[in-house]
Amino acid sequence: MSGAARVDVVARDGAARRTTVTTARGAYRTPAFMPVGTRGAVKALDAADLERLDPPVVLANTYHLLLRPGADVVAALGGIHRFAGFGGHVLTDSGGYQVHSLSPSVDDDGVTFTSVYDGAAVRLTPEDAIDAQGLIGADVAMVLDVCVTLPASTEVVRTAVDRTAAWAVRAREHHRRIEHRPAGQALFGIVQGGVDPVLRRESAERTVALDFDGYGVGGLSVGEGRPELLDALAAVVEVLPSDRPRYLMGVGDPVGMVEAVALGVDQFDCVAPTRLARHGTVLTAEGRLNLRNARFARDAGPLDPTCTCSTCARWSRGYLRHLLSVGEPTGWRLVSIHNLAWTLALMDRVAEAIEHGSLDGLRRELAERWG
Amino acid sequence: MSGAARVDVVARDGAARRTTVTTARGAYRTPAFMPVGTRGAVKALDAADLERLDPPVVLANTYHLLLRPGADVVAALGGIHRFAGFGGHVLTDSGGYQVHSLSPSVDDDGVTFTSVYDGAAVRLTPEDAIDAQGLIGADVAMVLDVCVTLPASTEVVRTAVDRTAAWAVRAREHHRRIEHRPAGQALFGIVQGGVDPVLRRESAERTVALDFDGYGVGGLSVGEGRPELLDALAAVVEVLPSDRPRYLMGVGDPVGMVEAVALGVDQFDCVAPTRLARHGTVLTAEGRLNLRNARFARDAGPLDPTCTCSTCARWSRGYLRHLLSVGEPTGWRLVSIHNLAWTLALMDRVAEAIEHGSLDGLRRELAERWG
Repeated sequence: MSGAARVDVVARDGAARRTTVTTARGAYRTPAFMPVGTRGAVKALDAADLERLDPPVVLANTYHLLLRPGADVVAALGGIHRFAGFGGHVLTDSGGYQVHSLSPSVDDDGVTFTSVYDGAAVRLTPEDAIDAQGLIGADVAMVLDVCVTLPASTEVVRTAVDRTAAWAVRAREHHRRIEHRPAGQALFGIVQGGVDPVLRRESAERTVALDFDGYGVGGLSVGEGRPELLDALAAVVEVLPSDRPRYLMGVGDPVGMVEAVALGVDQFDCVAPTRLARHGTVLTAEGRLNLRNARFARDAGPLDPTCTCSTCARWSRGYLRHLLSVGEPTGWRLVSIHNLAWTLALMDRVAEAIEHGSLDGLRRELAERWG
Repeated sequence: MSGAARVDVVARDGAARRTTVTTARGAYRTPAFMPVGTRGAVKALDAADLERLDPPVVLANTYHLLLRPGADVVAALGGIHRFAGFGGHVLTDSGGYQVHSLSPSVDDDGVTFTSVYDGAAVRLTPEDAIDAQGLIGADVAMVLDVCVTLPASTEVVRTAVDRTAAWAVRAREHHRRIEHRPAGQALFGIVQGGVDPVLRRESAERTVALDFDGYGVGGLSVGEGRPELLDALAAVVEVLPSDRPRYLMGVGDPVGMVEAVALGVDQFDCVAPTRLARHGTVLTAEGRLNLRNARFARDAGPLDPTCTCSTCARWSRGYLRHLLSVGEPTGWRLVSIHNLAWTLALMDRVAEAIEHGSLDGLRRELAERWG
């Protein structure tokens, strides 16, 4: 069986797994960190930069592409891969999380929100989200889910779980029905449930019952503590089938990722590496480095002496600090390339640790450095 | 003889010339367009982008580097080439033009202006400008000159010519004296004189008498008409020695450059190609194209079908229009790369026309398309 995202487990270390996921586009390796290309480009980078970084998957935001330039325009320009000039895997989120952040009006049928671009009222239903991702032409589409702001009452979380489950049914059916999508496009369901392990388990069971090609865990990393996040996540992963990818949405910090991998999660997305870069926070083997600090003004060394990225090969901390301090977009790009390369290299280390059965050691090391 | 910037004339067509200029760094070919790397980077580009574009020379702004990060910081980080990671020719302006735009207080000894960065009063003398460019480590430095806003009275222009001449003497002497500069750094004088051919000739004669390694023509392309510009330029070029590079400052439009080349000018700088790019104005074989126009939203073609740049090879007008319309820095970079590649390719055409004795035909073609 297995559908549109076949999982081959290459190695295990406890619950953690090293896999190869095969889709209609090809194969990608997990554990996988997915850089975020919000509006058809990872901010300040182009597709040639991405090719050099070689991430397993890149995420694009349905919400943003839907508003600008419009999913129909992306389709007219050949779909997201031709549009962005990128031949690798592209996963689109459904827009649920972005819409949630705009305090939308949610009803049983869908959600209405105000466009950040022109103030227009925009309607989004589970079917609309599937249509948009079909037009955009993602390799992996996500169902529209209902997020909640934590902390939240059990009642609010339950309503979100129920609506997410009902919308998942509609999304699954609509996705099977429509023809304006890539053949073999995978569709992932999304588990909600706040930080309540019981609701998380229920949401996971109801989602798995619909037989999606993979499973996202949404609504976490929104301000709750790491123990709460990991408890909720553990309740979910127990329910998820082992032959489908497991995707923890919105987590990209070293400890968060490695702890989730230890529970059996396969993939992650987060804007943090690029957003931090633009603000001068650099990820290094020694931990975070604040490039705005005056002591780096005359530092001729690379951002991270152990890093092999194109930025560390050529430019100094002093130069990059200068570019950021005067707001040069070149600085955003070069430091973003480093932070992404560093994060991707970390996932390579995680993968190797799983293969060598040494994930616990890496977890301890990262907790000490980054916890 | 010839000093620090030897000119070998490879071909002539009327007064126009194709040359090879040899400096301590190596050789560059003229007619040459020099992209502007204002603050140690051509805006949104990095040194690897520049290597691919392969411009003969890149300009860096002394004014900006002096204020941020400071010429001493650039020196501490190995000089402009190591700082920016760029091994090609770098020419620094003296800061005169930028300072002029800030309505500074000018006296016989130097100029006092207000920093755009922190409002501090900054003093710049002809010696300071030489010191700064020595520390920055440019291959070609420029003397500090006095610009005037046109139209201006003869008296104002004369004062600027006199001060520029007196400062040139001091700059020449100081440059010979100091040791904190690259061995073999070339120093170019600057001719002023507004649009008055008589004052232009006088300024040229007084500058040439000081035996600089090359000559800049400053204070033009500041709002006067093209006939006035070319008349003033013609009066200058007659006086300039044929064995030194001739540099028309601040001109980068196709007709302006080819007409100046026809008078015997060798090199140019201008921010226009990159500034236009960021605002959606694209240089093409058909003329200017306004990418903001809605008719390009679904245009899957390249910016210019005749262009061989990396942007035209991969991305569509529709994609690039989208990136610019949502303010993605990736769009600034990709369209800037195209506009620079286009301008550099135009200079290749100018060079070939000189070699083939067909410059007049190219002048007519450009006047028709861009006049």
